[in-house]
Amino acid sequence: MKLWEDRIVRDGKVREGNVLKVDSFLNHQMDVKLFRQLAAEFKRLYSDKEINKILTIEASGIGIACATAEEFGCPVIFAKKTKTKNIAGDVYTCKVESFTHSTVYDVIVAKEFLGPEDKVLIIDDFLANGAALMGLIKIVNDAGATLVGAGIAIEKAFQPGGELIRSKGVRVESLARIKSMSENGGIEFC
Amino acid sequence: MKLWEDRIVRDGKVREGNVLKVDSFLNHQMDVKLFRQLAAEFKRLYSDKEINKILTIEASGIGIACATAEEFGCPVIFAKKTKTKNIAGDVYTCKVESFTHSTVYDVIVAKEFLGPEDKVLIIDDFLANGAALMGLIKIVNDAGATLVGAGIAIEKAFQPGGELIRSKGVRVESLARIKSMSENGGIEFC
Repeated sequence: MKLWEDRIVRDGKVREGNVLKVDSFLNHQMDVKLFRQLAAEFKRLYSDKEINKILTIEASGIGIACATAEEFGCPVIFAKKTKTKNIAGDVYTCKVESFTHSTVYDVIVAKEFLGPEDKVLIIDDFLANGAALMGLIKIVNDAGATLVGAGIAIEKAFQPGGELIRSKGVRVESLARIKSMSENGGIEFC
Repeated sequence: MKLWEDRIVRDGKVREGNVLKVDSFLNHQMDVKLFRQLAAEFKRLYSDKEINKILTIEASGIGIACATAEEFGCPVIFAKKTKTKNIAGDVYTCKVESFTHSTVYDVIVAKEFLGPEDKVLIIDDFLANGAALMGLIKIVNDAGATLVGAGIAIEKAFQPGGELIRSKGVRVESLARIKSMSENGGIEFC
């Protein structure tokens, strides 16, 4: 998606350790007009599919997921990273290792919101090593729901997550796929 | 807002410890069509004001904040609860005690996204003791920005936050104000 790649090049900042800083428009300050365009693209890509639930993970996936859910006319579920006392015990769970925080956390979705009747599109801001996406896929499978596919804003295609997950037969649509990036050399797309 | 109060009565569940469980439509599964209506109401309430930034706090405020930001045609900033290595050191910060989690956490907003030129509307899902809102107000003040007001989806008016913050001269618009609630007696609005 040209407009999206242009924005990443213009405002994204490459930092050491393969960190792409996009907090001016994606995951701290959020350009919601842009999110609407990303959401419309996800709708176009999956327009042939029946989708009745969008699944994402807190926190930075929520904005794009909500915009996408409006396009599909369905609710969002955001998986939570810790167990709060507001969620009853009956949850699907998985463990996810965070690339950004170098830590492992528990992710949960209440069982009452996901079941065999659901056709799920997973939306997230980043796909790198694929840990979060693998966790969400496990939750969809544990629920007996149908996984329609995933929609990713930025895929770091030089990291193994995308290839790993596509090799399992999961449809993954990424609006920007970064082939390489460096602090001096800029960002190159697939 | 009648439609909103009706939904809270229909699908909200009162639990011991003054917990109102609204995770089927607000803070785990999210009814984005409903969020659009809440956002339109915030726009109506603040239609006389110039607003160029929506400020919220992760995670459950993000969905409503994004919908509201689309109504105002401006970006969202979501305050983060821990310091990640993706955020540079130059941040506004405050400490917030969580009612839900019974813990104190640090909240940060990168300085580059908030300054004296900004006219800020704070959006959040809940107002109870007011800790999160007080923290966000401190950040707006520290930035030298103009605080236009706050928009809250559900105010527990039997807890002190709303009164405390209004007494400081801050405009707080809550779409539902709960006067009392109990596990057996249901929910009563102001």
